[in-house]
Formats: sequence, structure tokens, C-alpha cells
Amino acid sequence: MRATLMYGSGDVRIEDVPDAELVEPTDALITVTRACICGSDLWPYKTMEHDDAGRRMGHEAVGVVEAVGADVRTLKAGDVVVMPFAFSDGTCVFCHEGLHTSCINGGFFGTPDVGGAQAEAVRVPQADGTLFVLPVGKDDALMPSLLTLSDVMGTGHHAAVAAEVGPGKTVAVVGDGAVGLCGVIAAQRLGAEQIIILGRHADRIALAKEFGATDVVSERGEEAVERVRELTDGFGVHSVLECVGLEQSMQTAIGIARPGGAVGRVGVPQDETLPASQPAFYDNITVSGGPAPVRAYIEELLPDILDGRIEPGRVLDRVVPLEEVPDGYRAMDEREAIKVIVEP
Amino acid sequence: MRATLMYGSGDVRIEDVPDAELVEPTDALITVTRACICGSDLWPYKTMEHDDAGRRMGHEAVGVVEAVGADVRTLKAGDVVVMPFAFSDGTCVFCHEGLHTSCINGGFFGTPDVGGAQAEAVRVPQADGTLFVLPVGKDDALMPSLLTLSDVMGTGHHAAVAAEVGPGKTVAVVGDGAVGLCGVIAAQRLGAEQIIILGRHADRIALAKEFGATDVVSERGEEAVERVRELTDGFGVHSVLECVGLEQSMQTAIGIARPGGAVGRVGVPQDETLPASQPAFYDNITVSGGPAPVRAYIEELLPDILDGRIEPGRVLDRVVPLEEVPDGYRAMDEREAIKVIVEP
Repeated sequence: MRATLMYGSGDVRIEDVPDAELVEPTDALITVTRACICGSDLWPYKTMEHDDAGRRMGHEAVGVVEAVGADVRTLKAGDVVVMPFAFSDGTCVFCHEGLHTSCINGGFFGTPDVGGAQAEAVRVPQADGTLFVLPVGKDDALMPSLLTLSDVMGTGHHAAVAAEVGPGKTVAVVGDGAVGLCGVIAAQRLGAEQIIILGRHADRIALAKEFGATDVVSERGEEAVERVRELTDGFGVHSVLECVGLEQSMQTAIGIARPGGAVGRVGVPQDETLPASQPAFYDNITVSGGPAPVRAYIEELLPDILDGRIEPGRVLDRVVPLEEVPDGYRAMDEREAIKVIVEP
Repeated sequence: MRATLMYGSGDVRIEDVPDAELVEPTDALITVTRACICGSDLWPYKTMEHDDAGRRMGHEAVGVVEAVGADVRTLKAGDVVVMPFAFSDGTCVFCHEGLHTSCINGGFFGTPDVGGAQAEAVRVPQADGTLFVLPVGKDDALMPSLLTLSDVMGTGHHAAVAAEVGPGKTVAVVGDGAVGLCGVIAAQRLGAEQIIILGRHADRIALAKEFGATDVVSERGEEAVERVRELTDGFGVHSVLECVGLEQSMQTAIGIARPGGAVGRVGVPQDETLPASQPAFYDNITVSGGPAPVRAYIEELLPDILDGRIEPGRVLDRVVPLEEVPDGYRAMDEREAIKVIVEP
């Protein structure tokens, strides 16, 4: 079958690989109908050293179940499913606590052992716990929004939950990428009174406003902190969604949090340390977040998508066939596209 | 009057200073009946550069109201009061949210403007919001425990709240100083199932066990992390109370937190950055805490002291008269005493 491999910075290729197949009795095999390129895929796209073996890419997908292992109980061939970016058994102590990304028998896609989703098909371990059967056909018009349940919408929601967003709260979203935009949706959905988006790309800002952003701050660093304080009676916001992962963005996030506020971080951290330890301490600011247990959030978010109350699929503004995935990476890296759908 | 000044590392003197007096109409003047030396006073005791002006010391006290300003409504001469380590007006938005340490009109003792509590008397700004009238006489046998409401017991409780301690939770306390020991009391009081104390001083460990610690880990660094994991089915604990403030203690705190767990930090951070950003992220560990709004906690903790259910005063294991405060600093610094009461 055809699949996406990254060999190093800027070097993405579509190649023939062995067909995905069932390995464990708890596996399912799915035909990928739609996958995505993720903002987190851009980190290795910018920095990965050359690797002769190549790395299988892609961890977000919707697809159709082709086959299931002998121990799979809740799925059957033909089911249309969404595949969260982490697999999880659904039964361990952490899954029971809603932290599927720490599942004792879980793991991540895109390893040598488990393939990637930017491919014609993918083997899904722990299929019963991982896959969620969708109540629509594989080409339903809602499919882009449903696809975001595999990562970005659940990740934006996780940032909002970690940042303790709630009715009447003031919120800031650091980063206007796909996750940041989904963070705006999540904050609006959870009842935030004011939603400040920090970003500087006109098309993304426009979308953020449609999603419920009430204010825009295009400055960076200290100026951004000043601007947010001006917008919030000098105090800063209750909740900050940190959707970038860089030292500067975290410094800004802590700087704009109000005393007693919370920063929910979902941008994959690129540094060993967190900045602004002392300011965060003296203002009793909480720093929370991490890889989103998106599997835990599907039940909550799905009805809003099916009813049209939220439209996170609008962050997916370009579609490429599998063979053009390398150009999709380029387009996202050059900020031509917010987020790219792959249709194998 | 006589008061404590620090002129530099290891240089603490008792000197004549101008009498404390009312300045603002919202002030009260209290005669200090008991004060403390704080673990946080040991940081400048170790590192402060020489300062000709000297720094007024002390921020924990119980005392008797001598006089009140014209605008003070809830206090009168003769009231026996506890003085939290931060003053606060009790009416601003942050006080209403229970975060008195971020009071808009608040501040801290031991500045040139507001004196210190290791003295015969102290001027208390925002007296109505700051002082709490105690229902006992100034020499009541419970006074050592009541004195801890000015800082260490409230700070240990804050660490436990920030670390999300609750019934059935597993807890670790990093640091066996007075705050760590109060953290053990707080964790036990909030229903923790297992309380692991990390420390290596026999007398303190013994007290921690009396307060409810179920396990002791005397190793440090990676070995401590291993040991805590062995004690918790390999997972780590739900809640970590970080009561030291050093990079290594925070690294350990994050290392022993279970996925989805929380670190409540109350040790004054000595570093600009927080370590282990990536491990904390990948395990969805929350880092919270800061200066404890001890004023907010007095109502909750006081009944347990009056009823004898908790005895935080036991961490105060030495009493010195004011003139011997320098030796009190030495004794705490050399770990001869856990925490020292000053009786002016």
C-alpha cells in the first residue's frame, strides 16, 4: 500500500510499504478515508535529522473498518470510525479516569511497530478501546468536523478544560493555528465571557472571530502582555490556552494570566524547562495540560458537531490526495493552509 | 522598641528602632506576644549581600491589639489576634476569590514601610481585612498551634489544596521542614489514603508519622523517584506537596507524580525556570501553588485546632526571647530546631 514517510527536515515521501494487517487479536484494520497533517508534524518537518529508515507519519483519521481481530467485541467490518491520535484499551485505571493518553496498554501512531494514518490503511491496536463508531456514512458532509475529533478539536477542548474555562470567565488563546482555533470554539462552548485570540494571520483571526473570539491581540512578547492587561482591567485573564509550545509563548501565557488563573498547555513543549517559574508562583498561576485524551471527549463533543452547533472542520482549509501530501506539508509550513486533509 | 534586623548572610541583630505606630486610618497596632522564624527567612540568612540599612524581619505573629486607626471597624484594643504573613483588605476582587496574597491593596511584612513581626510591636495595614480575632486568651495553651495559622499550617494546607488532595488519594510531601510537616497534617485532614514523606531527619520523620505519614522515603533524586514508584504500584502519587523550592526538589516532585496528578508548590522557588517541562507535559501533570492565602484558610482550620484534632504547633520545637533571635536563626539553619517561636 501507499504511505507517507519522513526522512528528515523537509523530506516527505509517499512510498510503497507492506500492507497494514492485523497483528494482535485486539487489533482492527481500517481503510483510511480521511487523514490530516498535524501542526505537531511540522516540528520534525523543521528539525528532523536525516534517517535512512524514514518515519511513518499521521495520527488522525476517519475510516472504515476492514477487519477485526478475534478479541474485538464492539466493532465490525463496515463500521465508520474516528481514530484518536493515541490508542488506548479503555479499561485500565487511567482510561477509567479519562486520561486515555496515559493508558497502560496504549501508545501512539507513527512508530515502526504501528504505522501512520497518512496512508491507505492503518492497523489500530486496542481497537475496542480506541475506535469510536460514527453514526453517519463515510462521505457525510460533516466528515471534516468529525475528523477533528481525532485530535485538534479534542486538543483545543483539553486546553480549555486544563485552563479551567467556565461560564463568565475571561480567556486568552495563544496561537492561531488549528488547535488555537479549536480552543476558541471550546472556550465559547464552555461559556467564556471574553475570548482574546493572540495571533497575526488575517484569515485565521477572521475564523477565530466567527468561532467566538471577542478581541484580537497581534502584538508579541511584552507588548502582547500589556495589550491583554488593557483588555482585562489590568488583571489578565482567568484562563490561558497555550497552543504553541515555545518558550516565548509560555512566557506570554503566564504573563497574561490573572492571579489565581490557569494556563492549559497543549502545544508540544520544545524546551526542557518552563519559563517564569517565579512570576507563576507569586501569582498562584496553575500550569496544566499535556497530550489530550481526545478519546474521552468524543462523547461530549460529538452531539454538538452532529447538531451543527460547532464547526471545527472549518479549520481544515485544504484537501490533498495522498500522493500530494508532501505539498500539504509545505503549504502548512509556509502558512498557506491552516490544516490539511489527506484523502487517500 | 526592640526589633530584628538582618544585615546580610548570617548577620541578624536585635536593635532599637522607632516605635511602631499607626500611620493609615485602616491600621492597627499590635503588641507581639509570639512570632516565628520562618523557613523562608533562611534564604536571605544564607545568601543576602550586606546591606547597611538592614532588613526588618518576621511576618508571623499572634498578639494583642493596642490601638486601631479611625477607619477600623471590627477590632478593638485588647483583642487577641493572629496576623497572617500578608496583609489584605478583605474586600477586593482577589480577596473575594480567596486569594488574599494577591490583594489589590495588600502587601507583605518586613519592608521599610511596614515593619517585621520579630519585634515588640508591629503596625498592621488593612487591619480589618488582615487580622483574625481569636476566641482565647493570649497565653492559651493552644497558642503555638494558633500561631501556625499565620503561615505554616495555612501554607501546608495550600500545598494540599493546590495538589488536589482528597479522600482516597495517594500523596507525597517533598521536604520535612515545618511546612512539609504541616502538609502531612493537611493531607491527613483532607482524607488522603497514603502519605509518603520525603525527608531524612529522624526527629522530623518521627513527627511526620505522628501526623499521619504512612511511608518514609529518605533517598534523593532518581532513587527517591524509584522508591515512591515502588510504593505506589509503579504509578507515582496523585498529589505532591512541594515544600522546598529548589530545582532538584521540583524535579523529584514531577518525577513522583502519577499521570494526571498535581504538584502543589509552596516552597519559595529559587530558580527562574521550572524543570521537567516535557515529563510534566507528557504525563498531564498540573503544577500549581504559590504564596498561601492563609487568611482565607483560618475559618476552616481554626475549629480543628480548638478541638485538638490537629496540633500543628508541635512543629514549633524551640522558644527564644527576642534578644536571642540570632541564635534561633542559627539553630534553624543548622537543623537543630525545626521552627522557632520568638517571645518578645
